[in-house]
Amino acid sequence: MFRNFKLVSNVIFGRGSFTQLEDILLKKHNNMPRTHVYVVDNVFQHSEFSRRIPAKKKDLLLWVNVDDEPKTVYVDSLTQAVKDWMTKEPGGLPASVIGIGGGSTMDLAKAISLMLTNPGSAADYQGWDLIQNPAVYHVAVPTLSGTGAEVSRTTVLTGPVKKLGINSDYTLFDQIVLDPDLVAGAPAWQRFYTGMDCYVHCVESLTGTYLNAFSQAYGEKAMDLCREVFLNPGPDSDDKLMMASYFGGMSIAYSQVGICHALCYGLSYVLGVHHGIGNCIVFNCLEEYYSQGVREFHEMLRKNNVELPRGLVADVDSAQMEKMIDIALTLAPLWENALGPDWQNIMTRDKIRSLYRLM
Amino acid sequence: MFRNFKLVSNVIFGRGSFTQLEDILLKKHNNMPRTHVYVVDNVFQHSEFSRRIPAKKKDLLLWVNVDDEPKTVYVDSLTQAVKDWMTKEPGGLPASVIGIGGGSTMDLAKAISLMLTNPGSAADYQGWDLIQNPAVYHVAVPTLSGTGAEVSRTTVLTGPVKKLGINSDYTLFDQIVLDPDLVAGAPAWQRFYTGMDCYVHCVESLTGTYLNAFSQAYGEKAMDLCREVFLNPGPDSDDKLMMASYFGGMSIAYSQVGICHALCYGLSYVLGVHHGIGNCIVFNCLEEYYSQGVREFHEMLRKNNVELPRGLVADVDSAQMEKMIDIALTLAPLWENALGPDWQNIMTRDKIRSLYRLM
Repeated sequence: MFRNFKLVSNVIFGRGSFTQLEDILLKKHNNMPRTHVYVVDNVFQHSEFSRRIPAKKKDLLLWVNVDDEPKTVYVDSLTQAVKDWMTKEPGGLPASVIGIGGGSTMDLAKAISLMLTNPGSAADYQGWDLIQNPAVYHVAVPTLSGTGAEVSRTTVLTGPVKKLGINSDYTLFDQIVLDPDLVAGAPAWQRFYTGMDCYVHCVESLTGTYLNAFSQAYGEKAMDLCREVFLNPGPDSDDKLMMASYFGGMSIAYSQVGICHALCYGLSYVLGVHHGIGNCIVFNCLEEYYSQGVREFHEMLRKNNVELPRGLVADVDSAQMEKMIDIALTLAPLWENALGPDWQNIMTRDKIRSLYRLM
Repeated sequence: MFRNFKLVSNVIFGRGSFTQLEDILLKKHNNMPRTHVYVVDNVFQHSEFSRRIPAKKKDLLLWVNVDDEPKTVYVDSLTQAVKDWMTKEPGGLPASVIGIGGGSTMDLAKAISLMLTNPGSAADYQGWDLIQNPAVYHVAVPTLSGTGAEVSRTTVLTGPVKKLGINSDYTLFDQIVLDPDLVAGAPAWQRFYTGMDCYVHCVESLTGTYLNAFSQAYGEKAMDLCREVFLNPGPDSDDKLMMASYFGGMSIAYSQVGICHALCYGLSYVLGVHHGIGNCIVFNCLEEYYSQGVREFHEMLRKNNVELPRGLVADVDSAQMEKMIDIALTLAPLWENALGPDWQNIMTRDKIRSLYRLM
């Protein structure tokens, strides 16, 4: 059985394409005046860019804080904020939810659009295909590239008992607006860590046992683009990084990520480390599994003058360590992709512990 | 203004995925028994493969002849055949139209699905965005790869006065089933000519003035895959050719084809030459414009032992020649992509005539 893969149905790409967002929303809703919810990273709250967001008086502009990675309780409270706003606005559900920011912000927008039409808490839906009702029409405007959140069928959330995505065809965005001008302003370290998420996706996808020609074509090109951006940058690096993120995300369609992502989930859950930098810290220690990829990653670190934090796990107590291992081991498909069906005999708790100790 | 590009919303890829077609149709229609129209290249009519088509007694199986390239009158008569069948079947429109074959068959399936919900003749809609009503849900199952018809928003038709596609978001397939096993049986020459359509797409897209990073990423990877398939073939060449076709089609999203396709349209219209071989005959004579691409194409011809027909235009009378030139000149966006806004001063009727004389 092969997955019948659902794709984001509308893509606009180009420098300056963000100015067409308002027009896209109007066209989508047959030129009727409707209300929209904008979910925007609060780093933009007092920025020049904020004035370009086409929110009207009747719309809801939710400034979100992604200093921590998205939690299910945060999704629940944001969803409640939208519902409170709805009671004041006639017409029920908003016509659209638009996420503007990096992977965390896009994930929050996905989760809110799902939770507006599905009862209960976001934590109830962490897993695979648990969502019953289609989401509110939702749009992504990435301002950071690398995670592939703009094309993925998941929204990665930290819940009360696990870090796990809401994986569903309904999670997928209906529209993405890829404007390379918007990623130009990101701080260099953030751009690097987020970009490396894409690079690691590619390494894990291309070396995985799940790989097929579909995922390979996307993964190889995404990797080539990462190399251009982080080893031989040029004037169109932002455009290329945006395409790398898109292709890297598509590569996961028929493949999976692997050891790095599984270990990073544990690290993030227990220590609250952000996904981008967490991936880099983990990947840095995985030469045993991804030798060529890790060597090239080291070259990218040097070329971009990035120094990774070390000794992160030094002060972790044994309860925390065991929790990290528990979380990492929940990601069975990732381990199976990396190591094959026999992965449980290869990746023992001891082995995972020894890997974490390197970080 | 950038195009808000619509994508095929569901893709299944994998060897043997064709067996999931019935399940896909059932799921799409909420497990209700519905009737479907299968539009299938009649080369399969008495084949082993025909028994694998999941058509039921109540479905309509239309064997289509694509010896000639699709004509609007043929689309009209096939649409009428579906309407006649509908009068005998209660429930009105079929739930799905499924095209199984190469680019011509897929184009016929697209056109029928459009003409079932739009009045008049297919010839009325040759052009850009003239279609008013959404098509019947339609599915492509390519058995030849290269044209990109599975992902394009056009169905190329020869009408009473022009060869021009029905270009519309509604033209796009809703679902594609990419099963590399199905392209394995194609005759070598047909596989080559169809594959070269993809290669030429890439050359024209990548050298065009419309190119952006989106189209470039897809085009470069499609070209790499063509090189692997036609210069260094291996056991997964069918998978790669299928992905090359998909990527080549996607590359046109923000780009365009160019001189070869424009001239080929004229050649096909007047002499009835098929698109695949027509492209090869034209491209062979375009070293002046695409020197590197044409050199590599010659290498592919040699490597695959393909001998192109020559002297095709020798017996063309002057009325035919002028008609070929007329048709070629209608394709303004192709010329502009290749030669820039000043193309009309560069590509005179005399110049086009001299190029045709080489073929």
